[in-house]
Amino acid sequence: MRSAAEIQTLFEPLLPGLLGVQFTEVTNERVVATMRVRPELCTTGEILHGGSIMAFADTLGAVGTSLNLPAGTGTTTIESSTKFLAAASVGTTVTGECTAFHRGRTTMVWQTLVRSETGKLCAVVTQTQLVLVR
Amino acid sequence: MRSAAEIQTLFEPLLPGLLGVQFTEVTNERVVATMRVRPELCTTGEILHGGSIMAFADTLGAVGTSLNLPAGTGTTTIESSTKFLAAASVGTTVTGECTAFHRGRTTMVWQTLVRSETGKLCAVVTQTQLVLVR
Amino acid sequence: MRSAAEIQTLFEPLLPGLLGVQFTEVTNERVVATMRVRPELCTTGEILHGGSIMAFADTLGAVGTSLNLPAGTGTTTIESSTKFLAAASVGTTVTGECTAFHRGRTTMVWQTLVRSETGKLCAVVTQTQLVLVR
Amino acid sequence: MRSAAEIQTLFEPLLPGLLGVQFTEVTNERVVATMRVRPELCTTGEILHGGSIMAFADTLGAVGTSLNLPAGTGTTTIESSTKFLAAASVGTTVTGECTAFHRGRTTMVWQTLVRSETGKLCAVVTQTQLVLVR
Repeated sequence: MRSAAEIQTLFEPLLPGLLGVQFTEVTNERVVATMRVRPELCTTGEILHGGSIMAFADTLGAVGTSLNLPAGTGTTTIESSTKFLAAASVGTTVTGECTAFHRGRTTMVWQTLVRSETGKLCAVVTQTQLVLVR
Repeated sequence: MRSAAEIQTLFEPLLPGLLGVQFTEVTNERVVATMRVRPELCTTGEILHGGSIMAFADTLGAVGTSLNLPAGTGTTTIESSTKFLAAASVGTTVTGECTAFHRGRTTMVWQTLVRSETGKLCAVVTQTQLVLVR
Repeated sequence: MRSAAEIQTLFEPLLPGLLGVQFTEVTNERVVATMRVRPELCTTGEILHGGSIMAFADTLGAVGTSLNLPAGTGTTTIESSTKFLAAASVGTTVTGECTAFHRGRTTMVWQTLVRSETGKLCAVVTQTQLVLVR
Repeated sequence: MRSAAEIQTLFEPLLPGLLGVQFTEVTNERVVATMRVRPELCTTGEILHGGSIMAFADTLGAVGTSLNLPAGTGTTTIESSTKFLAAASVGTTVTGECTAFHRGRTTMVWQTLVRSETGKLCAVVTQTQLVLVR
């Protein structure tokens, strides 16, 4: 199983690196990461863009799935649903905590709670990952 | 009503600028844009990250809504659901076309079809925007 | 391939029969059905219950998928997302039209537009069906 | 605030009555109910129809919202997303437990976990309710 540091390195040249996703806990059961709300991740009004939130969460769910994959399989997100509940202001840091509802042979379902620096729930992202036999 | 060029400028320092979203058609009825699949927008496997797709589409739906807002109101995405259907490879360009299902006083619902360079449907994103009285 | 009449008979003792779903067009490409808004399908306020709408649409998407399944496979809905746009009053009839975004070997994605008697769009339901090898 | 018995009576002639939803706990924070998997709530294969599951959950989220509404307001579901994880067999009873992610002035977001008799998670339904000023 990959460590948080290995996953950090793997994603550095990819979208999670561009967004500045920092993995702080990576286990089979739970993936936690933070993301600094830099101006270029925002939309108008100096708040974190909903797209940044969804990309952040999608990354966590994919990592969680990948840690639970049997040998010889891969994964792809097939569905993602997000409820946006509160804004996160520029200059703060959000935290995402991703846990599994289901880790099956064909699909896995993960939910990420994205919280503001003060602990306010900003978004709930629920996604389905398909397990692909290569 | 804002033109595509004005919206382009508005978003340049924000997430859509970071992603390289290029608006090509912006009307009350339809918003079209393209996005180059640069390596840093990808996930592993040299394909566009699902988060880039969702952020791209979310931007289009928010623009579509903003063009239909009555004076003195703003908007925020409250829900977004995405089905991922096919991958888009690094080095290609995807196109998003966003049209409205509903443009009401309280909510608007937009759907974005994201297609690959060859016209293959990569994702369907359906989102609900809340109309906020300021 | 099954006809509308055969599907009607198959579902008669099941939920679609309880709801009064009437199939009017059943092809590989498109499934159309109607449902009478009886009082017992409503919620308070004499309008069609959102659950009736989702059950109606889910039925259409499952039928559409089943008509496209290769021999030796089955299907199950793995995800469904609904946007509710307008109410349908008791005593009227709603129509659902379901078409495919994707008919792949592993998953199929269908979208159902549910309209009121006057043609007003009441709901948009997008669902993902998994293709199961038995 | 309405009791479980009052809500039971209110819904008796409506869809929840038709489905046989039995409310067992109704508070501002949590709504719990059961539903017997009768043959006419099933799809083919003698398992609970996904539509029955979505209608069951939608009912719980609407009740939860209604208990938290300020005077002079009503509610309508504007979005519902469901992940289906496991089947529930005919002749068994499912339980739904609905709790809130967000209870705001404009929207409320509730999530219902539907479990089989043996405690297996069958579905996760997340829905957004709009608060309507009458």
